[in-house]
Amino acid sequence: MSDWLAALDRRAELRAKAGLTRTLRPRAADDDVVDLAGNDYLGLSAHPAVTAAATAALAGYGLGSTGSRLVRGSTTVHHDLEEDLAGWLGAERALVFSSGYLANVGAIRGLVQPRTLLVSDAHNHASLIDGCRISGAETMVTPHADVDAVRAALAAAPNRPAVVVTESVFSVDGDLAPLAELHAVTRAHGALLLVDDAHGLGVIGPGGAGGVTAAGLAGELDVIVTATLSKALGGAGGVVAGPAEFVRHLVETGRTFVFDTAPPPAVAAGVRAAVGLAWAGDQLRAELGDRVALAVRRLRAAGLTGSVPEGAVVSVTAPGPEAATAWAADCRDRGVAVGCFRPPSTPDSRSRLRLTVNVGVPRADFEWALEVIVECAP
Amino acid sequence: MSDWLAALDRRAELRAKAGLTRTLRPRAADDDVVDLAGNDYLGLSAHPAVTAAATAALAGYGLGSTGSRLVRGSTTVHHDLEEDLAGWLGAERALVFSSGYLANVGAIRGLVQPRTLLVSDAHNHASLIDGCRISGAETMVTPHADVDAVRAALAAAPNRPAVVVTESVFSVDGDLAPLAELHAVTRAHGALLLVDDAHGLGVIGPGGAGGVTAAGLAGELDVIVTATLSKALGGAGGVVAGPAEFVRHLVETGRTFVFDTAPPPAVAAGVRAAVGLAWAGDQLRAELGDRVALAVRRLRAAGLTGSVPEGAVVSVTAPGPEAATAWAADCRDRGVAVGCFRPPSTPDSRSRLRLTVNVGVPRADFEWALEVIVECAP
Repeated sequence: MSDWLAALDRRAELRAKAGLTRTLRPRAADDDVVDLAGNDYLGLSAHPAVTAAATAALAGYGLGSTGSRLVRGSTTVHHDLEEDLAGWLGAERALVFSSGYLANVGAIRGLVQPRTLLVSDAHNHASLIDGCRISGAETMVTPHADVDAVRAALAAAPNRPAVVVTESVFSVDGDLAPLAELHAVTRAHGALLLVDDAHGLGVIGPGGAGGVTAAGLAGELDVIVTATLSKALGGAGGVVAGPAEFVRHLVETGRTFVFDTAPPPAVAAGVRAAVGLAWAGDQLRAELGDRVALAVRRLRAAGLTGSVPEGAVVSVTAPGPEAATAWAADCRDRGVAVGCFRPPSTPDSRSRLRLTVNVGVPRADFEWALEVIVECAP
Repeated sequence: MSDWLAALDRRAELRAKAGLTRTLRPRAADDDVVDLAGNDYLGLSAHPAVTAAATAALAGYGLGSTGSRLVRGSTTVHHDLEEDLAGWLGAERALVFSSGYLANVGAIRGLVQPRTLLVSDAHNHASLIDGCRISGAETMVTPHADVDAVRAALAAAPNRPAVVVTESVFSVDGDLAPLAELHAVTRAHGALLLVDDAHGLGVIGPGGAGGVTAAGLAGELDVIVTATLSKALGGAGGVVAGPAEFVRHLVETGRTFVFDTAPPPAVAAGVRAAVGLAWAGDQLRAELGDRVALAVRRLRAAGLTGSVPEGAVVSVTAPGPEAATAWAADCRDRGVAVGCFRPPSTPDSRSRLRLTVNVGVPRADFEWALEVIVECAP
């Protein structure tokens, strides 16, 4: 009966030998670590207007939404948040999910018809990959950011419905997908383009409206945008934005929407306040861009390499998983939290540190943290 | 380019003709509808201790967790909640996910090895079905609550790892799975038993610890429990509880855990307060049971039929989807919210009203609501 547990133990030992053990490290509210690992790019998670809106909704609604969106889970707060998100993103409608993961799975399944071909970038996030898998559609994985490969994949599937699936700012290396070029290709083929703007929303584009808006694609009827509400918006949940017919389709048939408890009204209220701050947040984004540029200069000056960041994700190459782990641990010991990405969380089996720049950190602390990262480099 | 939207419109028209249109109806904080549709069984979503704990965590941590659990998303609140849930459920460890959906998907995928056979009850929730699908494992669907069919399925797969997947209290009809008998069968075969206790947790069993505890199976090393934190606990999120080795396996490899933003600390704090209240909530459960019995007596006296509820879900048969919709709409017009389940949300293509009894509703309002339901019956 406990054979299965012994087998799990053996697999854990193999991971440990490969330097791939992962450990939960709970942080306290008064934790004084300098954060270059979280995704709170604009520092909105603890913004007084965000927590005040959430607190007021807690008092008004209680904690849970008490049901799925179609039963008791829809509140005026959810409705208002969706109106604001649609306005910000320039989409006809927006629909909120309880996580970005479920938004991505729901969007992809909702786009798949019989015979649909999915064309998925090799660096796509796990939630996009899982959405492709569970949709049951044939999925072709194309090399990262390779427009020619996407064009060839579509050309090889004439007269079939097709959806090209990509991120805007990629989560691991922080590079930007060639969205305008991809859209030209999908438009020419009559295919759809699904863009996960998780790391772009709030960070890039006019009014911080993300990579799709930056590429001039907001409101295009053959473009679907997904995003999380848990990064630059400092909250939790996910969103799908696009044509009204598609959102209606998700409301009525999307399994990860219909069969899931709605997000708490307090979370929706806090995120709604964050949307307002992010939309008007050009000053925050100017400071964020300045810090990203500083980080790149400092790391390059120290001989460290990585990708060219288009948002606020700065990737720094590490020699291997154990070196990456040791580097991140040394930083942590000195009071700096950095992301440490190793297989299987990386799309290419390479290990790296991931620095996510956050304007909620005091500037002096941020600059000091860069020195710590350089000093701890292997 | 908008052909796909026209196609979605045609599908929406077909649903409308079949009486299957679904509409979001946002409720306001001061909504005075009597709720027999939500899942806030113990009335904890608005309990002052729950909202106070959430409010305090908002002040301490801000709104979002700012990252995945393995990066910046784990807080002491998440850790403490997991300790409490493990203690309540009698499991070695418990792991919190951002939704019950993702907990179910994660648990099933984590249990699947090469050649695993999944045996899934025909009435299982969409999230369990999706977990089976995405795992890639061969899945045999057995007739509802049919222990002999499960035994035969396992006997037909000798020398293969197998997992039997069931709910405890089923979500649509409110009946209870034969958990002890199922466990005897899985134990004899050397298979594992996964139980989604979403509608049992807080409602049945000693200390409200759910259907698995009620069946005497708490802490068994071949039983995995999943649940949502959004029903009797009045919050949001999901949990997987079981042997420490399995939880470690999920922490290190579970895609819906590793690649998802952690739930907000405020939600975890509120749910933790709710766990304490539910664990000590025998008086709440006594009142709940009394109301369920009253509902069954009143509906039967009016000639209405349905399942025999084992928890707090009372199913009432409707003649068809349009009659069910009209019945629910008439109740709503008179100020009573009831669940209305039609295909494809029902496992058997039958339509029904679903009443979820909630002790947060004043007793007199509850009794009045039963009269409204009877008076509106088709």
